[in-house]
Amino acid sequence: MAAFSREPGRGRVAILAGAGNLPTHVARAIRSAGEDPFIIALSAEADGDWTSFQHERIGTGDFAAVERIVRVNGIDRLILSGSVKRRPEWREIRPTWKTLARMPGVVRTLLRGGDDQVLRMVIALIEGAGARVIGAHEVAPDLVATLGTLTSIEPDAASKRDIVAGREAALALGLLDVGQAAVAIGGRVIALEGVEGTDEMLARVADLRRRGRLSTSRKGVLVKFCKPGQDERADLPTIGAGTVRGLIEAGLAGVAVEAGRSLLLEREAAISAANEAGIFIAGVTRED
Amino acid sequence: MAAFSREPGRGRVAILAGAGNLPTHVARAIRSAGEDPFIIALSAEADGDWTSFQHERIGTGDFAAVERIVRVNGIDRLILSGSVKRRPEWREIRPTWKTLARMPGVVRTLLRGGDDQVLRMVIALIEGAGARVIGAHEVAPDLVATLGTLTSIEPDAASKRDIVAGREAALALGLLDVGQAAVAIGGRVIALEGVEGTDEMLARVADLRRRGRLSTSRKGVLVKFCKPGQDERADLPTIGAGTVRGLIEAGLAGVAVEAGRSLLLEREAAISAANEAGIFIAGVTRED
Repeated sequence: MAAFSREPGRGRVAILAGAGNLPTHVARAIRSAGEDPFIIALSAEADGDWTSFQHERIGTGDFAAVERIVRVNGIDRLILSGSVKRRPEWREIRPTWKTLARMPGVVRTLLRGGDDQVLRMVIALIEGAGARVIGAHEVAPDLVATLGTLTSIEPDAASKRDIVAGREAALALGLLDVGQAAVAIGGRVIALEGVEGTDEMLARVADLRRRGRLSTSRKGVLVKFCKPGQDERADLPTIGAGTVRGLIEAGLAGVAVEAGRSLLLEREAAISAANEAGIFIAGVTRED
Repeated sequence: MAAFSREPGRGRVAILAGAGNLPTHVARAIRSAGEDPFIIALSAEADGDWTSFQHERIGTGDFAAVERIVRVNGIDRLILSGSVKRRPEWREIRPTWKTLARMPGVVRTLLRGGDDQVLRMVIALIEGAGARVIGAHEVAPDLVATLGTLTSIEPDAASKRDIVAGREAALALGLLDVGQAAVAIGGRVIALEGVEGTDEMLARVADLRRRGRLSTSRKGVLVKFCKPGQDERADLPTIGAGTVRGLIEAGLAGVAVEAGRSLLLEREAAISAANEAGIFIAGVTRED
């Protein structure tokens, strides 16, 4: 068991964990970076195995429990990670008296607000409970995708055109608060991400490819960008070894993510799988 | 066999038919409206059964054949209908000397241009051959979706919110020249159309619904809008009885299309299927 450092006078870091395997990767990256995160798992969402971490399960709308856990465990920083597929029903929302008084409209926002609205409110409520909400990259900076090509394969001229086309679409999607990713082939955008997520969008592209609905002579690129207005304390756009498998299935040339505002999970496994398959992973910017 | 009228001094109308069943519906609607269309079927694309129409099959890039057919059959109006999934290879492009001289860059545009660019060029080439390119609705105005609710079921307040959210997304997509349709549930856009088309997007929504990835208490709406810059002589956004089946499978409350700039195929069958299923079909505008 590693000994975890804690700066003098500093509290513990916690992860409010939703669905998917992202919270598990974030928790491991935080351990690698030298801290031991406390896991607050949303019981209706979190599907990770948390037995090797100190953890507690709570209902999605249970702010009273968050406040208690933060206080009892001396948590001073909290990371939101993973997706929340189901909004809480109104009777599941348990705000504290303090947060209720400070934030009228909490219930309405939780039930009906856009994702970004809900996120801003959840952050305000948690910060009212005494912990600062931070991004995973602040504790585990190695997670962040850096600028430039990370693989031995570089994007060629055709892929660069696809990156430009895909980026325009991904940013437009982001403005609409719909998705973060697009696939462009031959300079044209052919698929856009909705709630299905990136992996399922790639499976769709693979299916279109198998059915001869896409160019056979052009490969194409997956592009993922942070939503223009996104709070960086929510999960940044993420890729990992699973994404590389999806790219191979879809016959794409590579993936471009926003440098500095995207997470690359399982970095070594992802890069070596990409190199083996002749696929590039590149960190790019909003402007050329 | 009906006798088809032709205005004195007026030529024949033709359909340049791509893939899908839309050209067949357009051809039938033109017959109902009293003219007998000549079908120019793109051999690599057109999958309709044209035995009951005078027709000829040509290669996708064969402008020389279009010019000959137009001249030989006295065609003065031509409708572009159906999709062209595969761009021609350069060696399949057979422009006439006349069109080549008039339009430098033809080959480059056909191979690499965006859909709208290619369309504008094809229209210019055909008009150079002597036929005016018109929209299907100019010969068969009954195809066009009109303003207001067409079914006995009206959109409720929740559906009206979904229409607003879906319209914003559909128009943004259209600006990017990607797709024309979006699905919104609970005021949030959850799916966007790429090259897969509306039917497959609805199948995806049905699948997400079955897997519990969407709200069970909210239905949602499919919204289809004409691309903001679209040449109305290309196929307008289209729905029909098949779309109603897709809406039922996806558990949606209804569909909103752009009034005056969308086609409603098999109008009676579509409306009666929608009424039976408790689903609305509405023609709406860009502004409220």
